[in-house]
Amino acid sequence: MLQAPHTEYAGPRAPGIRMNDGLMPGLTTQYGPAEDALLEAYHLFDKAHLVMLGEEQLIPREDAAAMLTALREMEAEGVSIVRNQVGGGMHSAEQYLIRRLGYNVGGRIHLGRSTGDFGAVARHLRERTRLLELIEGIVALRTAVLDLADQHLETVMPGQTGSQPAQPVTLAHQLLHWSATLDRHAQRAAQAYARVNQSPAGAAILTGSSFAMNRHRTAELMGFDGVITNTFDAIQGHDDELDTIELGVSLNISLARWSNDLNFWSTAEAGYVRIPDAFCGSSSIMAQKRNPAILPAIRNAASEALGAYATTAASLITTTGEFGGDGGDGLHRTFDSAVRGMNWLALLLPALEVNTERMLEAAGSHWAQATDVAAALVTELGLPWRVGHQVAAVTVRLAEERAIHPLDVTTELLDEAAVLYMDRPVGLAPAALASALDPAHFVAARTLLGGPAPSEAARQLTEHRTSLADTARDLEQRSAALDAAAATLEAAIDARIESSEG
Amino acid sequence: MLQAPHTEYAGPRAPGIRMNDGLMPGLTTQYGPAEDALLEAYHLFDKAHLVMLGEEQLIPREDAAAMLTALREMEAEGVSIVRNQVGGGMHSAEQYLIRRLGYNVGGRIHLGRSTGDFGAVARHLRERTRLLELIEGIVALRTAVLDLADQHLETVMPGQTGSQPAQPVTLAHQLLHWSATLDRHAQRAAQAYARVNQSPAGAAILTGSSFAMNRHRTAELMGFDGVITNTFDAIQGHDDELDTIELGVSLNISLARWSNDLNFWSTAEAGYVRIPDAFCGSSSIMAQKRNPAILPAIRNAASEALGAYATTAASLITTTGEFGGDGGDGLHRTFDSAVRGMNWLALLLPALEVNTERMLEAAGSHWAQATDVAAALVTELGLPWRVGHQVAAVTVRLAEERAIHPLDVTTELLDEAAVLYMDRPVGLAPAALASALDPAHFVAARTLLGGPAPSEAARQLTEHRTSLADTARDLEQRSAALDAAAATLEAAIDARIESSEG
Amino acid sequence: MLQAPHTEYAGPRAPGIRMNDGLMPGLTTQYGPAEDALLEAYHLFDKAHLVMLGEEQLIPREDAAAMLTALREMEAEGVSIVRNQVGGGMHSAEQYLIRRLGYNVGGRIHLGRSTGDFGAVARHLRERTRLLELIEGIVALRTAVLDLADQHLETVMPGQTGSQPAQPVTLAHQLLHWSATLDRHAQRAAQAYARVNQSPAGAAILTGSSFAMNRHRTAELMGFDGVITNTFDAIQGHDDELDTIELGVSLNISLARWSNDLNFWSTAEAGYVRIPDAFCGSSSIMAQKRNPAILPAIRNAASEALGAYATTAASLITTTGEFGGDGGDGLHRTFDSAVRGMNWLALLLPALEVNTERMLEAAGSHWAQATDVAAALVTELGLPWRVGHQVAAVTVRLAEERAIHPLDVTTELLDEAAVLYMDRPVGLAPAALASALDPAHFVAARTLLGGPAPSEAARQLTEHRTSLADTARDLEQRSAALDAAAATLEAAIDARIESSEG
Amino acid sequence: MLQAPHTEYAGPRAPGIRMNDGLMPGLTTQYGPAEDALLEAYHLFDKAHLVMLGEEQLIPREDAAAMLTALREMEAEGVSIVRNQVGGGMHSAEQYLIRRLGYNVGGRIHLGRSTGDFGAVARHLRERTRLLELIEGIVALRTAVLDLADQHLETVMPGQTGSQPAQPVTLAHQLLHWSATLDRHAQRAAQAYARVNQSPAGAAILTGSSFAMNRHRTAELMGFDGVITNTFDAIQGHDDELDTIELGVSLNISLARWSNDLNFWSTAEAGYVRIPDAFCGSSSIMAQKRNPAILPAIRNAASEALGAYATTAASLITTTGEFGGDGGDGLHRTFDSAVRGMNWLALLLPALEVNTERMLEAAGSHWAQATDVAAALVTELGLPWRVGHQVAAVTVRLAEERAIHPLDVTTELLDEAAVLYMDRPVGLAPAALASALDPAHFVAARTLLGGPAPSEAARQLTEHRTSLADTARDLEQRSAALDAAAATLEAAIDARIESSEG
Repeated sequence: MLQAPHTEYAGPRAPGIRMNDGLMPGLTTQYGPAEDALLEAYHLFDKAHLVMLGEEQLIPREDAAAMLTALREMEAEGVSIVRNQVGGGMHSAEQYLIRRLGYNVGGRIHLGRSTGDFGAVARHLRERTRLLELIEGIVALRTAVLDLADQHLETVMPGQTGSQPAQPVTLAHQLLHWSATLDRHAQRAAQAYARVNQSPAGAAILTGSSFAMNRHRTAELMGFDGVITNTFDAIQGHDDELDTIELGVSLNISLARWSNDLNFWSTAEAGYVRIPDAFCGSSSIMAQKRNPAILPAIRNAASEALGAYATTAASLITTTGEFGGDGGDGLHRTFDSAVRGMNWLALLLPALEVNTERMLEAAGSHWAQATDVAAALVTELGLPWRVGHQVAAVTVRLAEERAIHPLDVTTELLDEAAVLYMDRPVGLAPAALASALDPAHFVAARTLLGGPAPSEAARQLTEHRTSLADTARDLEQRSAALDAAAATLEAAIDARIESSEG
Repeated sequence: MLQAPHTEYAGPRAPGIRMNDGLMPGLTTQYGPAEDALLEAYHLFDKAHLVMLGEEQLIPREDAAAMLTALREMEAEGVSIVRNQVGGGMHSAEQYLIRRLGYNVGGRIHLGRSTGDFGAVARHLRERTRLLELIEGIVALRTAVLDLADQHLETVMPGQTGSQPAQPVTLAHQLLHWSATLDRHAQRAAQAYARVNQSPAGAAILTGSSFAMNRHRTAELMGFDGVITNTFDAIQGHDDELDTIELGVSLNISLARWSNDLNFWSTAEAGYVRIPDAFCGSSSIMAQKRNPAILPAIRNAASEALGAYATTAASLITTTGEFGGDGGDGLHRTFDSAVRGMNWLALLLPALEVNTERMLEAAGSHWAQATDVAAALVTELGLPWRVGHQVAAVTVRLAEERAIHPLDVTTELLDEAAVLYMDRPVGLAPAALASALDPAHFVAARTLLGGPAPSEAARQLTEHRTSLADTARDLEQRSAALDAAAATLEAAIDARIESSEG
Repeated sequence: MLQAPHTEYAGPRAPGIRMNDGLMPGLTTQYGPAEDALLEAYHLFDKAHLVMLGEEQLIPREDAAAMLTALREMEAEGVSIVRNQVGGGMHSAEQYLIRRLGYNVGGRIHLGRSTGDFGAVARHLRERTRLLELIEGIVALRTAVLDLADQHLETVMPGQTGSQPAQPVTLAHQLLHWSATLDRHAQRAAQAYARVNQSPAGAAILTGSSFAMNRHRTAELMGFDGVITNTFDAIQGHDDELDTIELGVSLNISLARWSNDLNFWSTAEAGYVRIPDAFCGSSSIMAQKRNPAILPAIRNAASEALGAYATTAASLITTTGEFGGDGGDGLHRTFDSAVRGMNWLALLLPALEVNTERMLEAAGSHWAQATDVAAALVTELGLPWRVGHQVAAVTVRLAEERAIHPLDVTTELLDEAAVLYMDRPVGLAPAALASALDPAHFVAARTLLGGPAPSEAARQLTEHRTSLADTARDLEQRSAALDAAAATLEAAIDARIESSEG
Repeated sequence: MLQAPHTEYAGPRAPGIRMNDGLMPGLTTQYGPAEDALLEAYHLFDKAHLVMLGEEQLIPREDAAAMLTALREMEAEGVSIVRNQVGGGMHSAEQYLIRRLGYNVGGRIHLGRSTGDFGAVARHLRERTRLLELIEGIVALRTAVLDLADQHLETVMPGQTGSQPAQPVTLAHQLLHWSATLDRHAQRAAQAYARVNQSPAGAAILTGSSFAMNRHRTAELMGFDGVITNTFDAIQGHDDELDTIELGVSLNISLARWSNDLNFWSTAEAGYVRIPDAFCGSSSIMAQKRNPAILPAIRNAASEALGAYATTAASLITTTGEFGGDGGDGLHRTFDSAVRGMNWLALLLPALEVNTERMLEAAGSHWAQATDVAAALVTELGLPWRVGHQVAAVTVRLAEERAIHPLDVTTELLDEAAVLYMDRPVGLAPAALASALDPAHFVAARTLLGGPAPSEAARQLTEHRTSLADTARDLEQRSAALDAAAATLEAAIDARIESSEG
C-alpha cells in the first residue's frame, strides 16, 4: 500500500527530506564511529527493542518476527560485516531492514526510539563491559601480587619515604599494599557497575514517546539491572562517563606508582630487581642496553589517562543541551591501558628476578634501622620517645661524619651522642644495640596489626586471598547474569518468530 | 632524673641533632600548614593516641593523665590559639607538652607514631568532614530543586539537544534530572565515606612500630569505622585522595551544566528566566547591565576543579616512596566550591523569576513538537515510523521555506509533503494535526515511565522526596555516630584523669 | 671478508645478541610507530647522514654511494611500502641495506647515530611540518574572516559581556578580533618554527660520538636552520614538545570560542545566523532537526587539546633520563583538529546566512545602547560621566518596570529618572535622546582608533590584509627554503653516486 | 550646580540605581580582588588616563589637575591603604575622588573607560611584570648553573636513558643542557613580553567610546610598547593569558626534571650528590632522616602548574561574551612557583656536595662505556658499525653472565664473543680495549660540536656566558624603558598640576 520513496533508503539525513544539501564530508560521523563493540551494542538494543515492540503490540507482531528473523540472518553473515556494508552506524539495522523488507516492515523498528537512547544504551553497555574487564584484570594482577608476596614474606629491603631509606620492610609488606589498593579499585568498579548497568532505553531523545513502551522489559532483555527512570536524565545525564573514566585513571596511576618502584629498584644503582629480557628493549648504539620498556609504558599510560579525564571533564562543561562528552574515546583508551598494564604486570611479577642479598644489605647500610635504636632506648632504659629519638639522631650524625657503617656502631658512640645531647651516657647493653641495628630483627618485631613481621604478613595474606576469592565470585555472578539475560532474549526472539510462523 | 637538653625544645628538625644547619626559610612548612581544620584533626589524634597509650600501659598511666589534663587546659585556652603560638604544626602538642611538663612526661606522647600516620589520619579526618558537608549541600540543593519542580509540573518549555529546540519538556522534567543526578552524587559520596572513614593510626611511617599498639581502640576513639590494616598501605595508599577529589570535580561539573542552562535561559534572546537582583552585578559603563554573576562563578569553579584533579593526579605519578600528592589544597578548594555552588543555587532557585508564557510560546514556535506530527501519522494512520518521520520532516522544510508558523500548518501542507515524499497524500484529520502541534499535548501524552506528563512527573517527585529523606537520615546517622565517638573519647579521658588523681 | 652472522639480520634487539629472550609481543613498538610521516622523516635523515659520512670519509665513499643508490631504488618502489615490508621502524633502512648489500656495506650506515637522534630529528622534522600546516590554515581562515568582515562593516548586532547584551557592535568588528587573534597565533607559530627547525643530528644518544661528524652539513641537507649544539640537550631537551603542542591548544581554544559564538547566534532564540545544510546533521526522531554539527565538533576539539597538553606535560615530569613524552600522539591530534577546524570554518564563513534585520532589531531592543544615553548627558549637558551613567541606569530600570521598549523612551522618562536620582530634571533635547537610542548611531560614533565605526573598521581591514599578506609571504619563503635544501641534498647524492661510478 | 545624590557614593552597583536589591554577600568580588599588585596597576591606569583626558580636553583641565593632585596625596598616604579603605577595587579611585572632590570633579574620571579595559590593562601590566621577574629568575639560575658547570668540566658520571646507565657524561655536559633550556625559556618570555606589553586602554568594554580618546598617549604613559588596536580584541582577546601561563608551566616542568635528577642522584643507592642540611627536613620517628625537601617541592609545583593550565584552558572554552578565564590566579601561582624554584636552585647549586669519586666509579662499573668498545672495533679494525656493536653486545652479555667487571674484560672475552657472533676472533689490541673501557677516555674523545669533551664543553660555556649576558642586558633595557615611561608620566602630571595652578 505504502509507496516507497523513489531512491534507496539512505537514512534520515539524506538530502531532499529535512534538508536540501548533503552533509559535508568529514562531518558524516554524526551517528558515531562504527567500531565492532558499538555495532554489537546497537545490535543487542535492536533485538531487545523489537521483542518488546512485538510483545506490547506497538507494531504488528508479524513485522517484529520478520525483522528479528532478518537480524538472525545478519548474525549468520556476521553482524559487523553486514552493518559496515549497509552503513548508517547506529541506524544500520534500520537501513538493512528497510532495504530488505521494505518500509512497511523495516520502517517500523525505530518506533519510540532515537539517536539519544541509542547512544546512551550503547555507552552504558560498553561501560559495563569495560568495568567487568577491569575487575577481571584486577583479579589476575592481584593473584600474581599475592603469589609473589607469599615468596617474599622474609625478604627484607629498605622502604623509602622522601626517596630516602626510611625503614626496613619486606617485599611482601609492600605487595600487600598493592593488593589492598587493587581491592579498593575492585570495590569502586563494582559500585560503579551498579550505577552503570541501568537502562536508558525508551527515553528516546529527552521525553520518551507517546507510545506505551515497556521500558522494564527492554532493560531486562539487555541484562540491565534496572531502568534510569527520568527520561531527560537518561539522555542528558553524563555523570556516569566521568565516574567510569575516573576509575581507569585512578587504577592507571596506581600501576604507574608501582612501575616507578620497579623502575627504581631495577636501576644499576639500586640493583634490587632485574627485569627479565622479555620485558626489555635494547639500543642501536649502546651495546650494553637492557631498557625495561614495560615500565615507562605503564607510567606514560597514567599521564595519558589524566589527560583523557581532563578532556572528558572539560567537554562536559556545557549546557545540558549541547553535545558534550568525548564520545567514549578517552574512556576506552584509559581502560585499554589499565587492563593492558595489569596483564603485563601479572606476567612480569612471576618472572621478576629479586636480588634478596642486595636488598638486605641495603636495608642495613643506610641507617634505615635507626628508628629502633630510639625504640631500644625507650624499651630497655625507659627513656621518653623523644629523648631516645634525639640521642639516636645524634648518633647517626656522628657515625656519618666519621664514616662508621651502621652495623659497626658501638655503645660507646651511642654514649658519646647521649653526652653531647644531655650531658650523660645512656648505657645501653651491646646486645640490645646489636638487635636494634639488625634489619631482620626490625621487621620481625613488628607483629602489630598490619605490620611487616612474617607471621602477621602471612595472616594478612590469608585475608587477602579470601577477599580476592569474593571479588572473583562476584565477577562470575555478574557475567552469569548477563549470560542469563542473553538466553532470555534469544528465547523471546524464538517465541516471537515461532508464534508468527505457527 | 633525665636532664633536659640545654635549650628549649624546638622540634626534631632543630639544628644540632641530626643536622648541623637550620632549614632554609620557605621550606619550613615541612609539617604542613597549620590551618584550624588541621590543628583540630591533630588534636583529636593526640587525645585518642594518649588514651590508648595509657590504657595499654605503653607509657606510664599518670603521664598519660598529666598530658590529657594539659590538653584539656589547652582546649580551655583555645586549641588553635595555643598551637599556633607553640608552633610545630602537627607536632605542636608535643612541643607544648615538653615545654610544659618536661621531657620525662611530654617526651612520651609520640611513642609509636610518626609524621606519616599523623598526616594520613588528618587527611582521612578532613576527607570525612568534607564528604559529610558535601552530602549536606546535596540535601539542601535537592530540596530546593524538588520544591521548584513541584511548582512547574505543567510549565512547558523547549528542551534542547545540539543547542537547538528538540522537544517540548517541562521545567519540572529537567529539574527531576537535576535531582536524580544529585542523588547519584550523594550515593558516591556515601560510598567514598565508607572507604575514607578508616584509620591509618598506628601505622607510623610504613611499618607501625615494635610497641603493642591497640590500633582498633585509637580508631574507635576517633570515630573511624575501622582500621586500614596494612601499615605500608595506610601511609603510602593515596587512592582515597583521587577518589575523593573526583567527587568534588564531578559535582562541580553538574552544577556548571545547570548554571549554563540558567545562563542561556536568562539571555535577552531566550528570556525564559530572570535572575533576581541579588545575584547580579552591574557595569561601570553600561547603564543597563544586570550580569548574573552567580552563574559564571559556578561554571568557572568546574574549570578550577578539573585543574585541581589534574594536579593531584600528576603529583601521584611518582614512586611509592616519593612525596607526592598536593597536600589537600586541591581537594579543599574543590569541595569549597562545590558546597558554595550548591548553597548558592539553593538560594537562587526559590527566587528565580520564571517566564512561563515565553517558555510555552517558544515550545510551539520552533518546531520542537515535530516528533509528534510523525507520531500522529503512525498512531492515526498506521504509517511506519520512518515514513511518518520523513513526511513530517518534509513538512517542516516546506513550512520553513514559506515562513509558515508551526501552529499555522494545515493538513494541506502535510499532504503536499507526503506527495513530494511518496506520491500520495496522507489524509490526517485536522484535529489530530492540531493536537500534534500543541506543545502542552506533547507533554501530556508522555505518561510512560519517567516521562514528562504532569501525572508521571508528580509520581517521580514523590519517589525523589522519599530517596532524599533517606539520604538526609543516613547523613544524620553518620553525624550521630561521630558525636557518640567523641563522647566515648571524652569519657575515656575523664576516666584516665580521674583514676590518676584518685 | 667479514662473515655474516648465520641468520638474516633482525635488528639490534634480536635474541642471542645482548639478550637471550625475545621481546614480549605488545612491547615491540620500541622504535616507534611506522606511520608514513615518520618513515619519510627517517628516510630524509638516512640520506643526509650518508651524504655527510661519505663527504667526511667516515665510511668508504663507495659504500656511501652504494647505500644512496639503494635508497634511490627504494624510493622508486615506494619508501613506506618497502620500509614497512622490511620492518624495524626507524632502523628500516639499516635492515634493508644490510640484507641487500651485506654487513660490510649496509652495516656502516648507523655510524655516529642512535635511536636518540633518530627520534629527535624525526620529531623536529614533523613539528616543523605541522607548524607550516598550521600557518597555512591560519592564512586560509584569516582570508575568509576578512572577506566576511568586508561584507558586514555596517551589520549592527548586540555584543555580549557576561552573556548579556552589552553594546551594539558590528559583525565586522568582531571578525577583526578573530583576525587579530589569528595573526598572533601565526606570530607564535613562526617563533616556534625558528626554535624547532634546529638539528639534533649527530648528538647520537647523549654525547655524540668519537667520530668527526660534520653536524652542520647534516643539518643543512635536511633544511634545518641550525644545530642544537649541546648533544645532551639535543636528546633530552623536550621543551619544544610542550611549546609546540601549546600552540595547537591555544588555537583550538580560539576556534572553540568563535564556534560557541556561532552556536549561540544560531539558536532558535537568537536567530542571528543560520548554519547552511552542509554543516548540519538531522535527527532520527525529531523531524525538524538541523543540528550545526560542525560547531560542537570544533568546541570538543578544544577539550581534547587541553587533555593532550595535560598528558604531555605530566609525561615530562620525570628525571631527564626516563622515557617521557607522549610520543607525539597528542601533538599530532591537536594539530590535526586545529587545521581541520580552521579549514571547516573557512568553508562555513562564506556560506553563513546572516540575518541582519534580526541582529539590528536585537541591538536596539535590550538596552545595549544605554551607554550612549549616559554619553549624551555628558556631551550635550556637561554632566560628569558617573552622574550621566546613574541617571541612564535609573531610566533603564523605570523603562523595564513599565515594559517600555528602549526606542519608545522619552525625555520625560529621563527627567523622571534624573529627579529620582538628584532631585532635578536634566532636559536633554529629544533629538539627542533619539540619536543616543539608535544602535546604528552608536556604532557610527565610534571612530576612535580600533572602534567599530565602518570607516575605522575599513581602515583596520586594510591593515589586516597587509599583515595577512606578510604572513603568507613568510610562509612561502619557509617552504621555498625547504625545497632548496631538498634540491641541495639530491644534488649531493648525485655527486656522491657519480664520483663513485666515475 | 549639580546636586549630589542623597547618600555617600557607593559605586555603580549600589541598590536604587539600576537594581533595587543589593548583591548577595560572597558575590561582591565583582570588581576583582584588591591585592596590592592589582591596586598598583589600577593606580597607574588612573593617572595615565587622567593625564590624557586633560591633555585632550575631554574633561576640564582643572578637574584633571585636581584629581591628579588628590591621587598624589593618596600616594603620600599609601595607595593600597587608602584604596582598601575606600573600597570598590578597580573603582576605588573614583570612589575616593567623588567622596573627596564631589561628583562634579571626581565623577569625571571614568569617562571613556570601563571595567573591561580596567581589567585588561591590569592583566597586561601584571603579565609584563611577571615576565620580567621570570627572566630575572632565569638569569640568576643560569648564572649558578654555568658556575657549577665550570667546576665540573671533568667530572665524569653515568648519563641515563630509560633509567639505565647509557654513556659516561660529565656533570658540566648535563648542566649545559640546563643552561640551553633556560636560554630558550628566556627567549619565549621575551617574545611573549612583546605581545603582552600592548595597551588595551581606551577599548572600554568592547567598542571604545564616542569620545576622542588618545589611546597612544595613555599607552605611552603606562610604558606599553603599543596599542591593541581593535577594541573588541582588546577586551575579548584572552590568548595572552594562555600564552603567558604556558611559559610558567613549561619552566616549572624543566625545573621538575632537574629536581628529579638531583633527587635520584641523592638517593642512598646512587650517592652521587648530597643535598646540604639547609635544604633537608628530618623525621619525628626516623632518627636518621635527611629528606631533601626542596626537591619534591619543585616537582610538585610542576603538577600544580599543569593543573593551572588545564583550569585556564577549560575556563576559556566559552562564547566570546561569557566571563571566562581564571582571573589570573593560576598564572600568578604558576609564576610564583617558577621564580621560587629557580631561586631555590640558584641557592642549592653552589652548595651541592658532589661525590666525584662515586660518579666516576659508577660510570665505569655498569657498562656505560660499551658504545666505545664497538667504536674501537670500527676505528681500529674497520668493522662496520653494526658488526662492532653486536660483538660488543655479546661481550657484555658474557661478562654479565660470568660476573666480570667491565674494567676486567680482556681481549680474550671479546674474541670469544666475536667467534660466537661471526665465527672468527677480532684481535683488538689490549691497549685499544683498555682505552675503550675507560669512561674518562670516552668523554675526552667526544670533541665534536656540542660534545662532552672538556675542551668543547669549555667552548660551549663561553658561548653560554655571552648569551646569558645578552639576556641580562635586554632585561635591563626593558626595565629602563619602564622607568623612563614612569618618569614621563610623573612629568606630565607635574605639568598638568602646574598649568592649572599657574
